[in-house]
Amino acid sequence: MPAEGSVRIVTLDGIPEVAVGDDVGRLIGDAIERSPDALPLTAADVVVVTQKIVSKAEGAIVDLTAIVPSVRATEFAQRFDRDPRQIQVVLDQAVRVVRMDHGVLITQTPHGFVCANGGVDASNVGPASGSIVTLLPADPDASAGAIRASLRERFGLDVPVIVSDSFGRPWRWGIVDVAIGVAGLRPLEDLRGTPDADGRVMHATVRAVADELASAAELAFGKATGRPAAIVRGAAFTRGEGSIREVIMPPEFDLFP
Amino acid sequence: MPAEGSVRIVTLDGIPEVAVGDDVGRLIGDAIERSPDALPLTAADVVVVTQKIVSKAEGAIVDLTAIVPSVRATEFAQRFDRDPRQIQVVLDQAVRVVRMDHGVLITQTPHGFVCANGGVDASNVGPASGSIVTLLPADPDASAGAIRASLRERFGLDVPVIVSDSFGRPWRWGIVDVAIGVAGLRPLEDLRGTPDADGRVMHATVRAVADELASAAELAFGKATGRPAAIVRGAAFTRGEGSIREVIMPPEFDLFP
Repeated sequence: MPAEGSVRIVTLDGIPEVAVGDDVGRLIGDAIERSPDALPLTAADVVVVTQKIVSKAEGAIVDLTAIVPSVRATEFAQRFDRDPRQIQVVLDQAVRVVRMDHGVLITQTPHGFVCANGGVDASNVGPASGSIVTLLPADPDASAGAIRASLRERFGLDVPVIVSDSFGRPWRWGIVDVAIGVAGLRPLEDLRGTPDADGRVMHATVRAVADELASAAELAFGKATGRPAAIVRGAAFTRGEGSIREVIMPPEFDLFP
Repeated sequence: MPAEGSVRIVTLDGIPEVAVGDDVGRLIGDAIERSPDALPLTAADVVVVTQKIVSKAEGAIVDLTAIVPSVRATEFAQRFDRDPRQIQVVLDQAVRVVRMDHGVLITQTPHGFVCANGGVDASNVGPASGSIVTLLPADPDASAGAIRASLRERFGLDVPVIVSDSFGRPWRWGIVDVAIGVAGLRPLEDLRGTPDADGRVMHATVRAVADELASAAELAFGKATGRPAAIVRGAAFTRGEGSIREVIMPPEFDLFP
């Protein structure tokens, strides 16, 4: 167990290139056994796994050579020097186009996420795969749940799992990692009604702890060094059968439709 | 130094209630000397300090009893069960009202931040201060710079400093901590043109590393336990004379005005 109040982020090394059909839970378990800082797992651990290896393992990928872009995709792509086939994949995956301007395509995915390119991503998809893009996993909570079950069976400990992806934000440059799927923890820490340090009751504080865990894990990934998973150890969070659906703001509260 | 690839977040305990005129750099330095896990400071450290104690020390506070709300503030407050004086303070601080609906008031601050209530906050402002709200520091980069200078003088080491605050996000419930001021590091890690793990050149990846550092630090704060500062040790970041202004998206790129 970590010192009281301190949090540690342990990267999991040695996860090989992932292919369709691979068992991500087993690969994560192997990496934990190879990482001396990871063992023993503790009740204060959360495993964070990047979307990219989950999508690849689940076959949530598209070969752009099979895509015929529409006129809409082609016009947008030509205007902003982008790949029209990738634009077409984003449009195919979208339940709603939120913004399509400045070369930026922001869509809402079937999961409810609003993000650039609907989570369709061309980076880090393998050495010989210039035309392959990854989609978001079809059910990221289930993806996280499968990894959780695999780790529980192997290590005899119920370790919560987060599947993470990098999202941009309005009004601020730069991407940060957020949770797109969770298993075994509550993604939101509801502090409403909890007295703060002064005894004042806080009445508008819901903390997106799963997103903060995802961002923290990213600090240890080293984006270009092929570490697609980490353990965050010692953070305060609440166990439970949470779902990333709790994080999605319903349309009636959306001030930026 | 931490193990290669691992990151540690060390909370700084024993920071007393802050009052106007207090020297935050000295208080942080005292807390570092009292925290056995903090010493020795290393070249891999970033100090993260929450906005609240910085604002209090700088006197960036308003006593609501002196505020006479306008008709606009009163009508909005009555409709959504909020304090009309606090709404008035938010409007007084705003350079632009972005959204004002559903009881949510989103403004752009003079610094360029777009956030709920313009960063005006009533929680955690001291035991006997029911009518006191904090504003954002006038120049959060300068606030961070003063703490950095104080730590450099005391410990002989140039430790980057981030001033953080909790912001909501469109489309997702819950707040996460982000950077509102930086000193001694680049807030954005520009990976454009850097080959990824497969040798593919990434061309749209700018990582908001200061925001991820702020979120990571929050995991160790324990929001209701009065720990307003932490050290993040071992994360990858780039030193330099950065400014939070680099993070602000200019109006011509804002798809959500």
